[in-house]
Amino acid sequence: MKTLRLGLAGFGTVGSGLAKILHENREIIVSRTGREIAITTVLVRDAARKRAVPIGAEARFTTNPDDLLGEDIDVVVELMGGVDAARSLITRALESGKHVVTANKHLLALHGPELFALAASKGLGLFYEASVAGGIPIVQTLRESLGANRIERLTGILNGTANYILSEMTTNHLDFGTALKQAQDLGYAEADPMLDIEGFDTAHKLVVLIRLAYGRDFPLGKLPVRGITQVSGQDIQFAREFGYRIKLLAQAREVDGKIEASVQPTLVKHTYLLARVGGNYNAVRVEGNAVGPIMLHGQGAGGAPTGSAVMADIMALCRGLNAPCASFDNTGFGNTPLPPADILPKGEGVSMHYFRFSVTDKPGVLASIAHTMAEHDISIAQAVQKGEHQSSDVPIVFLTHKARQSAVDEIIRIIDGLSVTLRPTVHFPIL
Amino acid sequence: MKTLRLGLAGFGTVGSGLAKILHENREIIVSRTGREIAITTVLVRDAARKRAVPIGAEARFTTNPDDLLGEDIDVVVELMGGVDAARSLITRALESGKHVVTANKHLLALHGPELFALAASKGLGLFYEASVAGGIPIVQTLRESLGANRIERLTGILNGTANYILSEMTTNHLDFGTALKQAQDLGYAEADPMLDIEGFDTAHKLVVLIRLAYGRDFPLGKLPVRGITQVSGQDIQFAREFGYRIKLLAQAREVDGKIEASVQPTLVKHTYLLARVGGNYNAVRVEGNAVGPIMLHGQGAGGAPTGSAVMADIMALCRGLNAPCASFDNTGFGNTPLPPADILPKGEGVSMHYFRFSVTDKPGVLASIAHTMAEHDISIAQAVQKGEHQSSDVPIVFLTHKARQSAVDEIIRIIDGLSVTLRPTVHFPIL
Repeated sequence: MKTLRLGLAGFGTVGSGLAKILHENREIIVSRTGREIAITTVLVRDAARKRAVPIGAEARFTTNPDDLLGEDIDVVVELMGGVDAARSLITRALESGKHVVTANKHLLALHGPELFALAASKGLGLFYEASVAGGIPIVQTLRESLGANRIERLTGILNGTANYILSEMTTNHLDFGTALKQAQDLGYAEADPMLDIEGFDTAHKLVVLIRLAYGRDFPLGKLPVRGITQVSGQDIQFAREFGYRIKLLAQAREVDGKIEASVQPTLVKHTYLLARVGGNYNAVRVEGNAVGPIMLHGQGAGGAPTGSAVMADIMALCRGLNAPCASFDNTGFGNTPLPPADILPKGEGVSMHYFRFSVTDKPGVLASIAHTMAEHDISIAQAVQKGEHQSSDVPIVFLTHKARQSAVDEIIRIIDGLSVTLRPTVHFPIL
Repeated sequence: MKTLRLGLAGFGTVGSGLAKILHENREIIVSRTGREIAITTVLVRDAARKRAVPIGAEARFTTNPDDLLGEDIDVVVELMGGVDAARSLITRALESGKHVVTANKHLLALHGPELFALAASKGLGLFYEASVAGGIPIVQTLRESLGANRIERLTGILNGTANYILSEMTTNHLDFGTALKQAQDLGYAEADPMLDIEGFDTAHKLVVLIRLAYGRDFPLGKLPVRGITQVSGQDIQFAREFGYRIKLLAQAREVDGKIEASVQPTLVKHTYLLARVGGNYNAVRVEGNAVGPIMLHGQGAGGAPTGSAVMADIMALCRGLNAPCASFDNTGFGNTPLPPADILPKGEGVSMHYFRFSVTDKPGVLASIAHTMAEHDISIAQAVQKGEHQSSDVPIVFLTHKARQSAVDEIIRIIDGLSVTLRPTVHFPIL
């Protein structure tokens, strides 16, 4: 069988991780796929730079994207990140008849449907296991293993940097800035960590997972996203007292045929496995109407775990191409276009909630807040008020029973307008 | 596209679970596979018995296996269990050109290689996701998603009944008999629970997983197997005091190119996710040299979760058959015959250990046991002796550092021969 020839775009952490796997595990890979796989061309910014990674004498480095589109490439592996250049490269690769493997969640979240349509029209594979949760095989699991299920709920911890920061704030009582600095020193966070901590990276991944779970396209712009910069040490401490951990959760579920989805810091009961996902690990919990709850846990980033997922896609392409004819269903829905998701209006979502009100310590303040909540049908499950004697700024924390989002938004508007309220109310949902 | 026609062998928990999924999730399944799937024939013991499960008017019940081999069946789904009749049916089905989906770990453990060879010679699919860990997609994950990894270690809780019993003994302090009775009342355990509690069911599953992870055939008869009947409440309590839980673990790892594997009750540190697998849940932890540690957690049995896995296999067949030509790699190693595993001799295994010695309370007994261990290079990490004053039967518990199995066997032989030893020494490895 002919060697499968890869053209890599990008040779950073994941690209060099992939080359290392291909080098070290060559024998295993060949025994499984029945053919050699070689990196023949690598698109980089600086082709002259020396690189320590073993990549095969035949590989050439280039700065010209056209070099990935020639006769000598079977599969373009896009690991360069970013949106515009990657979109152009993948489009041109598919138009040139190349299969594509990508780890680019941002690109897929924004332009997935267009790229899937192009791949389908050409009968090509466009695989993306590495785009969500690194080495955890959640794309494969949703697309194939759980394919017979109606997915009732999908919950994920999908950003290792955010989870590391929250874990350090919880376990070692670090403040946000120190924990972030530590994540950066350990190489977890990007130099500009905005995508990680503001929840956008998690949002990109959730859009990809919603397509796989529901066969619907949920526009990124319609997804409510909150990051972890709003989580204070004080909230983490209050949550702990009630038996919860705060996690940055991606969530999607189907409610009467409508999809409700969000990315936000969320209180998770400490006995749940999701609460125990520590450090920079990722996890995805899927509840199917047949399979029940399934959880997958592992490394969500890094060169080797992500490279493992990229390699799994390349091997899947190999297996397909080993047949005299190949057929690739990239979305898990037979290459039919994905209709837009019917989205649950934001106000209609129902959840338990955590509220922290910052108020002046005057008689009747707690009663008046509680009264406002009762008027809006929000029922309080647990409460704590912790003020120093005569303190002018007192936190009041309420945990509520299930409440409608519209009522939650309304009471926050009212309470934040009260003269006794000193700072905007902090609130997170409870899983 | 033509309807895919299934012939079911067996209509117990899993068979009726499958029929229910096909009925309830029909729309999802068709949207993913692009074709209808129908159960046309069901092989049962009593064809006249009324059944409450929706299965489609066209389905006929029969007691004649030949009815599964005719022109009107595309896929034989073997859910009857047992070895001989199932082996004969699957062999005949493959010889008749039918694809096969099976949940039968016992059959695969004993006769997998012969059946895989037959399927390969006919170019047919022989799929078995449901044979290990119910709804957890561990077969798919090992065969495909982690295919680029050298698997360094595989650890599984693969029998829900055994895990339920151990969990109840640990959490609710039930004795073995009461916990087993409870598992039977809940429908978890088989009427004859011997396969569950003696570890054989777990062993069957481990043999299947070793093939997928290592591409080697590990003969069932060469696998050391210990069940949970040897685990007493006393041992669970001692383990807890040291911060461990006792779990029935299937384990395999590669040591210098040799495979070490076993099924035995094992102490697991309470902070590990595996220690937190409760009730009748299953979990599999896989450590790959690229992906790092991955854990999958979910329902390991029951009609709906197992039916979900069976249906995933049927849908994978569909996807394959949707191409003008189909190619099926059932083992994940390109249909080449699996060579026998090079097995690590039992004495060469290295592990930390838990020992409970039952001895007469005489001066110097602890010292003499400790001395015997030291002589055999077994180093004690923690010790506890708990005797009532003047009691004649005292448990001495040692947790050791890493020790060779041959030394462990030898000191047990020596200590069990001492006159002060009242009952055989209990010992379990520590993960």
